[in-house]
Amino acid sequence: MSSAELNNPDFYIKGVLASDISILSRAITLVESTNEEHQKIAEKIIDGVIEKTGKSFRLGITGVPGVGKSTFIESFGLELVNANHRVAILAIDPSSQKSKGSILGDKTRMEKLSVHPKVYIRPSPSSGTLGGVAQKTFETILLCEAAGYDFIIVETVGVGQSEIAISEMTDFFLLLMLAGAGDELQGIKRGIMEMADMVLITKADGNNIQKAKNARTEYAHALHLFPPTESGWIPKADSCSALENQGITNVVKIIEEYKNLTVTNGYFSTKRKNQLKGWLNHSISEKLREKFYSNTSIKAELEKMKSLLLKGNINPYKLASDLISKWKS
Amino acid sequence: MSSAELNNPDFYIKGVLASDISILSRAITLVESTNEEHQKIAEKIIDGVIEKTGKSFRLGITGVPGVGKSTFIESFGLELVNANHRVAILAIDPSSQKSKGSILGDKTRMEKLSVHPKVYIRPSPSSGTLGGVAQKTFETILLCEAAGYDFIIVETVGVGQSEIAISEMTDFFLLLMLAGAGDELQGIKRGIMEMADMVLITKADGNNIQKAKNARTEYAHALHLFPPTESGWIPKADSCSALENQGITNVVKIIEEYKNLTVTNGYFSTKRKNQLKGWLNHSISEKLREKFYSNTSIKAELEKMKSLLLKGNINPYKLASDLISKWKS
Repeated sequence: MSSAELNNPDFYIKGVLASDISILSRAITLVESTNEEHQKIAEKIIDGVIEKTGKSFRLGITGVPGVGKSTFIESFGLELVNANHRVAILAIDPSSQKSKGSILGDKTRMEKLSVHPKVYIRPSPSSGTLGGVAQKTFETILLCEAAGYDFIIVETVGVGQSEIAISEMTDFFLLLMLAGAGDELQGIKRGIMEMADMVLITKADGNNIQKAKNARTEYAHALHLFPPTESGWIPKADSCSALENQGITNVVKIIEEYKNLTVTNGYFSTKRKNQLKGWLNHSISEKLREKFYSNTSIKAELEKMKSLLLKGNINPYKLASDLISKWKS
Repeated sequence: MSSAELNNPDFYIKGVLASDISILSRAITLVESTNEEHQKIAEKIIDGVIEKTGKSFRLGITGVPGVGKSTFIESFGLELVNANHRVAILAIDPSSQKSKGSILGDKTRMEKLSVHPKVYIRPSPSSGTLGGVAQKTFETILLCEAAGYDFIIVETVGVGQSEIAISEMTDFFLLLMLAGAGDELQGIKRGIMEMADMVLITKADGNNIQKAKNARTEYAHALHLFPPTESGWIPKADSCSALENQGITNVVKIIEEYKNLTVTNGYFSTKRKNQLKGWLNHSISEKLREKFYSNTSIKAELEKMKSLLLKGNINPYKLASDLISKWKS
């Protein structure tokens, strides 16, 4: 590959559309790069493939470390490839610099998947703002779709804010939980459970079977108390053992049911459209905020006002409008 | 009152600090006004009283229409005044123009409270953006606190987004629910339940007692499955009958417990500080967005791009950065 090729968007566009994995990986690296030249090439690559995107099913998976995400994805992914899907697995963990390490760990735990010709595994950038990570993940999804992957799995640990971003860029949100709750749950952020389309109790094997079944019943009950979803879908609870390959097919079936329901009632495409509008809005807000807060005189003024604000001795709304009126972008 | 007085912030500041209800009401009207002159006076009034604010307990109450909010508040408010509190009740319903009507209805349903000398009842503005309503409600809270009300109740119907704003401006969030769930719950937005510090099943009287008790047990169970709160508080579920004045004292007690716990562990003041930072951020973001979207060339460009965006034929992140770079504020 010549260096002229490395700067030529068409080289990547052709390669991605031809499902060339090494070119796909290089294109994703450009998307993730903070270098401005790389960013420009990345933009052109995405423009060049965007008409070939949007055809996949996008699945978000969240669970705390130790819940068995990799083991689950190994079994689940094999079901998908057996059903003739091409699967891309993206892992996000913006809160930790360890992500790269952990997905390499994951890759060893995903023994069969990681060498399967129909599977592509990729860690997402582990640093930067949440908005930046979300953007890069979304653009990576687009590239994978253009490369012909029709089932995209985005996984994240449920301890930060990234799972909210994930639920906003996927079609179905699967929450993995351990039976026996208590301390293991400390990590999951509040509000996540109500976003789930399915709660799946993992590790329902050995001595843990009864506990897992009880947990399933409890969650099924709790989900039932939640207000109905916009999709008309009633969130499901189930248990599984990736180790013994029990209950995995059922997850595939439930996701199929969800897809059938929401494609038929129109929610699937409504949700996708709302997501597009949402990302545009978020992205605009974020860029505006960046511009505003990076202004040095605004920064100084804010610093000056901070202690008054935290003492409750200044009206935050008044402060906001004062700052805005002082701002020249 | 002369017209010079009507434009003099000091007149209002003195009146509010002296707990003059008619001057308090006029000051709130200025806060709510969209007239620029009024806004300027309102800002000065708040500046003048802000050091006397922040001393109250702020309670948010949400529930769908029909759950019995007014009846509950009538009984609950009487408990508070008997315990020597001065109570301000603010009602918000940004989704509906009927709010003014409904709080008048509420006032008749709050027979004893509405004439009690230690109680002030006020509907909040029912129109405008959510951010605008939140700002006005917050500023109204400040005015009520300056007027010596030490227990502020902000009520809203759980069908819009306002309850999220409310949970962000109160110390304790109480969710009223009906037993028997089903259709009655259609209104409550998803995600609200996980914000609740307490779920209270209303109308536990007559034939409804057993149903309400069962519902309480179910919710207690469901709340227990939620991840722990940052406050260290375990959300409670209970039932009550405002009609028979059963279970109302217990709500007062639970709120006292919450206050003791969170004041002791420092969460009470941490939350207040985070709220202040949050409002500053929200308010800045909102004003930036207003500025941006009201720009005519941005508007035209967005309109042009809309169908491409909704077809998924343009990258929303790219569109956002294109628009931002074209923007001159």
